[in-house]
Amino acid sequence: MYSFMNDYSEGAHPRILQMMMQFNLEQNVGYGEDVHSQRAKECIKKLIKLESADIHFIPGGTQTNLLTISAFLRPHQCVIAAETGHVNVHETGAIEATGHKVVAMPGIDGKLTPAAIEAALKHHTDEHMVQPKMVYISNSTELGTIYSKAELTAISNLCRAKGLLLFLDGARLGSALTCKANDLQLAEIARLVDVFYIGGTKNGALLGEALIICREDLKTDFRFLIKQRGALMAKGFVAGIQFEALFQDNLFFELAEHANSMAERIALAIEDCGYTFYAPPCTNQLFPILPNELLEQLANQFVFSVQAEVDATHSAIRLVTSWATTEESVAALVQFLQEHRA
Amino acid sequence: MYSFMNDYSEGAHPRILQMMMQFNLEQNVGYGEDVHSQRAKECIKKLIKLESADIHFIPGGTQTNLLTISAFLRPHQCVIAAETGHVNVHETGAIEATGHKVVAMPGIDGKLTPAAIEAALKHHTDEHMVQPKMVYISNSTELGTIYSKAELTAISNLCRAKGLLLFLDGARLGSALTCKANDLQLAEIARLVDVFYIGGTKNGALLGEALIICREDLKTDFRFLIKQRGALMAKGFVAGIQFEALFQDNLFFELAEHANSMAERIALAIEDCGYTFYAPPCTNQLFPILPNELLEQLANQFVFSVQAEVDATHSAIRLVTSWATTEESVAALVQFLQEHRA
Amino acid sequence: MYSFMNDYSEGAHPRILQMMMQFNLEQNVGYGEDVHSQRAKECIKKLIKLESADIHFIPGGTQTNLLTISAFLRPHQCVIAAETGHVNVHETGAIEATGHKVVAMPGIDGKLTPAAIEAALKHHTDEHMVQPKMVYISNSTELGTIYSKAELTAISNLCRAKGLLLFLDGARLGSALTCKANDLQLAEIARLVDVFYIGGTKNGALLGEALIICREDLKTDFRFLIKQRGALMAKGFVAGIQFEALFQDNLFFELAEHANSMAERIALAIEDCGYTFYAPPCTNQLFPILPNELLEQLANQFVFSVQAEVDATHSAIRLVTSWATTEESVAALVQFLQEHRA
Amino acid sequence: MYSFMNDYSEGAHPRILQMMMQFNLEQNVGYGEDVHSQRAKECIKKLIKLESADIHFIPGGTQTNLLTISAFLRPHQCVIAAETGHVNVHETGAIEATGHKVVAMPGIDGKLTPAAIEAALKHHTDEHMVQPKMVYISNSTELGTIYSKAELTAISNLCRAKGLLLFLDGARLGSALTCKANDLQLAEIARLVDVFYIGGTKNGALLGEALIICREDLKTDFRFLIKQRGALMAKGFVAGIQFEALFQDNLFFELAEHANSMAERIALAIEDCGYTFYAPPCTNQLFPILPNELLEQLANQFVFSVQAEVDATHSAIRLVTSWATTEESVAALVQFLQEHRA
Repeated sequence: MYSFMNDYSEGAHPRILQMMMQFNLEQNVGYGEDVHSQRAKECIKKLIKLESADIHFIPGGTQTNLLTISAFLRPHQCVIAAETGHVNVHETGAIEATGHKVVAMPGIDGKLTPAAIEAALKHHTDEHMVQPKMVYISNSTELGTIYSKAELTAISNLCRAKGLLLFLDGARLGSALTCKANDLQLAEIARLVDVFYIGGTKNGALLGEALIICREDLKTDFRFLIKQRGALMAKGFVAGIQFEALFQDNLFFELAEHANSMAERIALAIEDCGYTFYAPPCTNQLFPILPNELLEQLANQFVFSVQAEVDATHSAIRLVTSWATTEESVAALVQFLQEHRA
Repeated sequence: MYSFMNDYSEGAHPRILQMMMQFNLEQNVGYGEDVHSQRAKECIKKLIKLESADIHFIPGGTQTNLLTISAFLRPHQCVIAAETGHVNVHETGAIEATGHKVVAMPGIDGKLTPAAIEAALKHHTDEHMVQPKMVYISNSTELGTIYSKAELTAISNLCRAKGLLLFLDGARLGSALTCKANDLQLAEIARLVDVFYIGGTKNGALLGEALIICREDLKTDFRFLIKQRGALMAKGFVAGIQFEALFQDNLFFELAEHANSMAERIALAIEDCGYTFYAPPCTNQLFPILPNELLEQLANQFVFSVQAEVDATHSAIRLVTSWATTEESVAALVQFLQEHRA
Repeated sequence: MYSFMNDYSEGAHPRILQMMMQFNLEQNVGYGEDVHSQRAKECIKKLIKLESADIHFIPGGTQTNLLTISAFLRPHQCVIAAETGHVNVHETGAIEATGHKVVAMPGIDGKLTPAAIEAALKHHTDEHMVQPKMVYISNSTELGTIYSKAELTAISNLCRAKGLLLFLDGARLGSALTCKANDLQLAEIARLVDVFYIGGTKNGALLGEALIICREDLKTDFRFLIKQRGALMAKGFVAGIQFEALFQDNLFFELAEHANSMAERIALAIEDCGYTFYAPPCTNQLFPILPNELLEQLANQFVFSVQAEVDATHSAIRLVTSWATTEESVAALVQFLQEHRA
Repeated sequence: MYSFMNDYSEGAHPRILQMMMQFNLEQNVGYGEDVHSQRAKECIKKLIKLESADIHFIPGGTQTNLLTISAFLRPHQCVIAAETGHVNVHETGAIEATGHKVVAMPGIDGKLTPAAIEAALKHHTDEHMVQPKMVYISNSTELGTIYSKAELTAISNLCRAKGLLLFLDGARLGSALTCKANDLQLAEIARLVDVFYIGGTKNGALLGEALIICREDLKTDFRFLIKQRGALMAKGFVAGIQFEALFQDNLFFELAEHANSMAERIALAIEDCGYTFYAPPCTNQLFPILPNELLEQLANQFVFSVQAEVDATHSAIRLVTSWATTEESVAALVQFLQEHRA
């Protein structure tokens, strides 16, 4: 039974594994100070056009989020996120476990807005309340949507005017950058945010997120914090080699583009069959609204998750494609939909 | 230049990589609930003869330590460790960052003793002081030594008499179990401690530690804690496959035995050449005491680290062998020593 | 200019100060183990009809909240509170600073409902989300309203059915118990909740909250936690004497009743003058909605705070009476209102 | 039975209580923003000759320590203290509960030395270990000893050279400043340290410590941190009035001087009777070494605590005098000693 459950069901792209094999018996310095990590960082610095960036490879996304947020806030400061933000709902209180409140504001299709940020600021007025100091956004978001250049610029401008740090969770940044609607370049993101990461786990690596610190004063002692949170891999080169493979040529973007293009086929079929979406389709996560009775049949052939009950007879489900999604499985899903038009 | 710096300089043993290749495009359930993790757990349960054990694969050692200690202590409780214990000195305050004091007691050759534990208990008498609730030991220790069955039994008995949890850090448990002096079996350890882990990172895996919870009342909700600390890998099967490869046959023990046997050759040469040790040689970490002027020459041919200044003209260094250490490199080191007898 | 800003503008009721003078030079054991604390506890145990209760005197309310919540939760567990709950908005993230998320649910007039608690439970389904383990309510609430016996019983029943601890913040419990609409007795509260406190600071003491642990398994080691959070007063008898004075006779209730009766006069005048309320008037906190232009004049004669903008021309303000509120000041405020009818 | 157990057995000095009575029914602004706190701060600023200092009144000592240390450290940073330091042993892990390690170094008679600080720095070399960022000292120390001007200057110079913050716990600063051996003035301390506090609880107040932040960049947002830790008293004026009483004239120093002079009489008798001390007698805490069999008789007439077993037949005890210690009780103790000469 084919799974559209998520984008981390398979191992690594063969070119990544190949490079791991090639260097397997080479001796490397530990803790990310190896030549592969170094080369991967150089590739990324070129792409983001920011030679001064500090780059660290972190095993996983929740770890990257909790590490980054707690590294830059004083104890009384909080981070503002959309209600749907990963740090707000799906990390088992990882941010709060480091001592910081997540102030959740309503988003639009999973995106935070300048108005929501300003509302949060207006509400937090004195020392009896936490002090907003950081804004957290995801791109693509937890609902598969993306920030346009205008939207990200507006948030960035507001953050700089208000002294807020801007942190972009790019666990699925590949899918955002390669989707058709995107008008943002990596180098622009690096100028607009203070810190962000480029996700490997959800785009063809075994594991690993490339955390990029753009702002000078955030760089100090960051490796201490990585170690303290248990995120300094002894064999850091395992992540380094993978990012080297992803960024020494265009592989990172090819993989994300494949996932998006598979999703696009499915999205077109969904629309064509008369179904609507819980959030506008855009990247590799789709949220079609389907009749509950159809879901039972769908579940006999495909693995997916239910996102929300929409009304008494309909639910929004979540379908995720990946670098590894096969054309055959997409064709089978499209066929299923065509046989079950609205 | 050959490195005896640590046991995590190379990638994974080829049989592990081979299995990763074999299952690379298979779709797996996320977050460690896949069949490979399941199979690996079954293998381990058989080895430890404890069908009821809860087993979780955690990416790294510091993460395993901070997660385990903070999961089982109430806020006012502390963990007792040897002064040389990894959690006391080499984790950048990871345990304290979760809110708990590490009460460090003098050890003997890196080992904690019942007397030291009793001294810690005697010192902590009332609510003005932290309450000891857990004992942390490493086997093999940070000085390469091991606990005998009698020693571990004595500590275990004391812990049970005093209501202390016993946690064994087995980042290098393979080296302990396969060294010549060892008289402890895995199944005995599982009966004597409450929770322990079997290290993969330092014994041939790319990453991963198998945390084993033996005591029933410690099992509740543990996956919540893994997730909260950022240790729940999306692609949990990456660790699962590796432990499956290590434990489906005897590979885990073969690798550790190789490391020990390489170390033993070096240790014999050191003794033969008239040098002594900072801690008794036993497993894959050796701490010879050498003249400082010799170290400069040694450093031209080999990579190693300095452990301690012993006197004005001598230092203890640390030499580590691994599953990947070559006979040639050992021979070269032995030859160097023979050419520079005391 | 008379202040209706809060109920902690003056020192202590003279009978409390008198008792402090009387015992001032007596030598007492430190840290709350003195005879006055003991006697105060006995008085409270009788009132709540729970001889087995553990009672601790804590200097302040935020401290009591953070201490209590963090004492009883494991790291991955959260507390459910009304959005208006003190722990959610007005404690500068004190709960999160101990590592725990506050899951805020919409309330009705400041009160949490069983439906809101069930909604929170339904939303938190697995280990990717925090685990609800405690419910926090305030009585009287931050909007001056109170829980009826039926309401508290319904919440208590739900909590027990779901394995949730129930914690009642009684910083203003005196005002709740003595208001006309109340149908709850202290002894009933002690049976319905697991832990609660009776506020001294806002009812005539210099400082101090009496925390009462009703449930057996929550009592263990609580003094360790008090000390760790910096809440174990060296001169614990300073709080003990004050609670002795409040509870050796009816003083605690007399003081709260006075505050309520002063508020009632004001509330009647507000209604009589044609104004409405942001939350139903009930205890010593009133939230009338007044025209903004009237507020400027009011501010020339009285001190108060603005709670919320209601519409373009009206705001809800907050008026608080206390044990020390004088009849003259109430008469002056009533007169002002009568001269400025709607 | 007279108690020499500690210096917080009685209430407040009558002149303090008198001032509390005088202003009891006056209405004050909450949270320490009242006129009494303001006046007390002005008095203290004059004494320390630092008009720019930020001063906050905190209820208790442990709270002040945990608040101050956690306010100024990033997560990976630690505080260096003497092994006997209050934050290391007698605060139930309060500092660790905020996430920071206390690195304990051997002291000399309870005092930290530049050599010990340098040793701690030398040991902490890279990101695998916590980063020392603050030095904590107490004056007078937990063993009743004091820092000379030369000693404090040496520590201060070292801290500034190494970028370490210097925090002085002055829970018993009165006793240090008024003892005969002292050569330090308050204004000198304020120039040599970055932050310190003047203890009220142990010198005649009901409660309260005056925390003084000398260094400009440490002042930002400190009230947020006070609130978050539960240390922002609603009736802040209760502490304000007491410090006003202590510092509007010479009362603070008179009280400490009395305690010291009572201790001095006892110390002279101890020496005269042929007994020695565990730490040199200097302030209001004395640590005579007495035969165990004598302790039993002593315990029939006086309350005191045992500090340490010195040998099989002798123990060091702790005798503490205070502002309230009576001449009669001292005379009785002296007489007891004279009747039991060594």
